[in-house]
Amino acid sequence: MAVYTHLGAEEMSALIARFDVGTLVSAKGIAEGVSNSNWLLETTGKDGASARFILTMYEFRIELEDLPYFLSLLDHLAAKGCPVPRTIHDREGNLFVSEYGPNGDKALALIEYLPGVSVSTPTAGQARAVGAELARLHLAAADFPASRANGMGVAEWQRLAAACGPEGLARINPELAEIVASELPRLAASWPADLPAGVIHADLFPDNVLMLGDKVTGLIDFYFACNDLIAYDLAVTHVAWCFDKNDAFQPDVSQALIEGYESVRPLSAEERAALPLLGQGAAMRFAMSRAWDWLNTPADALVTPKDPMGPARRLGFYKANPQVFA
Amino acid sequence: MAVYTHLGAEEMSALIARFDVGTLVSAKGIAEGVSNSNWLLETTGKDGASARFILTMYEFRIELEDLPYFLSLLDHLAAKGCPVPRTIHDREGNLFVSEYGPNGDKALALIEYLPGVSVSTPTAGQARAVGAELARLHLAAADFPASRANGMGVAEWQRLAAACGPEGLARINPELAEIVASELPRLAASWPADLPAGVIHADLFPDNVLMLGDKVTGLIDFYFACNDLIAYDLAVTHVAWCFDKNDAFQPDVSQALIEGYESVRPLSAEERAALPLLGQGAAMRFAMSRAWDWLNTPADALVTPKDPMGPARRLGFYKANPQVFA
Repeated sequence: MAVYTHLGAEEMSALIARFDVGTLVSAKGIAEGVSNSNWLLETTGKDGASARFILTMYEFRIELEDLPYFLSLLDHLAAKGCPVPRTIHDREGNLFVSEYGPNGDKALALIEYLPGVSVSTPTAGQARAVGAELARLHLAAADFPASRANGMGVAEWQRLAAACGPEGLARINPELAEIVASELPRLAASWPADLPAGVIHADLFPDNVLMLGDKVTGLIDFYFACNDLIAYDLAVTHVAWCFDKNDAFQPDVSQALIEGYESVRPLSAEERAALPLLGQGAAMRFAMSRAWDWLNTPADALVTPKDPMGPARRLGFYKANPQVFA
Repeated sequence: MAVYTHLGAEEMSALIARFDVGTLVSAKGIAEGVSNSNWLLETTGKDGASARFILTMYEFRIELEDLPYFLSLLDHLAAKGCPVPRTIHDREGNLFVSEYGPNGDKALALIEYLPGVSVSTPTAGQARAVGAELARLHLAAADFPASRANGMGVAEWQRLAAACGPEGLARINPELAEIVASELPRLAASWPADLPAGVIHADLFPDNVLMLGDKVTGLIDFYFACNDLIAYDLAVTHVAWCFDKNDAFQPDVSQALIEGYESVRPLSAEERAALPLLGQGAAMRFAMSRAWDWLNTPADALVTPKDPMGPARRLGFYKANPQVFA
């Protein structure tokens, strides 16, 4: 939500010169990313036509290890026609600029700018389009050679729950502590292992989808992408798209999302049967990361932490209503 | 430095429909503004050609009173050929959208997007161009009908100094407390009153100038604009442009800035003679606002407050070296 590093025109111009994208015309720091800085750039373009890009500066070492996975995944998916931003390689062919900055501890990547805006209240038509694009992503990634473990899997939910502690969770909401105590062991014990696995986006909230009307123009923010159960990605997307601001289930959006998905990649009987459980797990994953953020965000921070009770209530909904996936 | 309010695609589209600028194609929250939220928007444009704008949401009532002054000043200056963003009026001809949001306490303005980037280390050629544009602004504003007092004038420096207190200033730097104790009463007592007055930008730091090479493509951020001594604006710009990161005076940049200014609006003998004092006042103004921010920014805030010692040292430089304006 901030730009951590100031880059003046001179530094930005020198940086852009490492890429074959023309010269700098404009650079605006954009309020995206939590631990990295982002700019929307305009250049004169390779052939004199104006071109736009997103420049990301990775500020912390911890982010660098997986950068080749994320950026080469974008290239792989874009080459197969998925609406994801292409990575712009530098003049030497590198996926990103490494060892940048006075201490050489930062990295920079340039990706394509895509048009579109993120919706707040998805319609069924929009959910159908997103379901279809998610399925296309899963198919397109089938031959992606790299692999990355899911850092936000079951073990991490358990670690976050322990780090918050029952008292911490109860301080947020007594109901949350009860849900975690009763549901997390059950989910961990029954989590499926034998469903089809592959590359998943793992965070496809409406914020991470650019749309123009009912058309998906961009799937963005792949920093949680990993290899995990493919149907779990549909469950994450379901948690993110099929409830309104007041956590009310939207049956038409849900049906459209699943139909859209299956119009491209039909679910197996096992995947379909697992969806109620995968939905509960997806809800638990966001409840736990939000609970941790809730307890660890300074009171005077500019960023308002998201309420973990939204996903926690959705978990209860999935448990009580498995038929929405039938 | 943040986007305080989330506007989804639906809300943003409805908002854009109030203006004759086509339909929404993209919206990125940009990391500009301290107490307002800003977005860089792309639309299909009036005539089907892509167009870009900056949308600003004013979050706090206190900002609204002076909005007509700021926005109509942009229109006035743009009409006279100054490189400032035009205000886009809504379909009913209003300068801005008022009574916006669930509580009706916000306002929104749409202004033109301008290309260009802000330099970090100005060259003499860039300072010359900025001097000339500042002078053109002063001439173009001569018949601007509205008026606004300078909220950051001598009385405000005194108020801020008192609010920080000698202990607070000494906590920042003992030298700062001494400078304020000895120089502020002297500046207040000798501040000129009979120099030519008019509309001034009052905050023309490199951050507020968009450039492409040596060409000024945009003068932006008019939220300190007011009616005050015209030569004081040149003094503010001098403080902001003519010293490097280590507070070392840059004689070639200084000479170019003043020459550029005088190539369009020659200074009177009285204005020139007052510049050393006006420079000290401009330095005091930024030292005091920064001192207050320094003492009142939470330790864990994302924004790093600017060091008041930079302008404080420049004050000493001007006092010791009045000949730089001779």
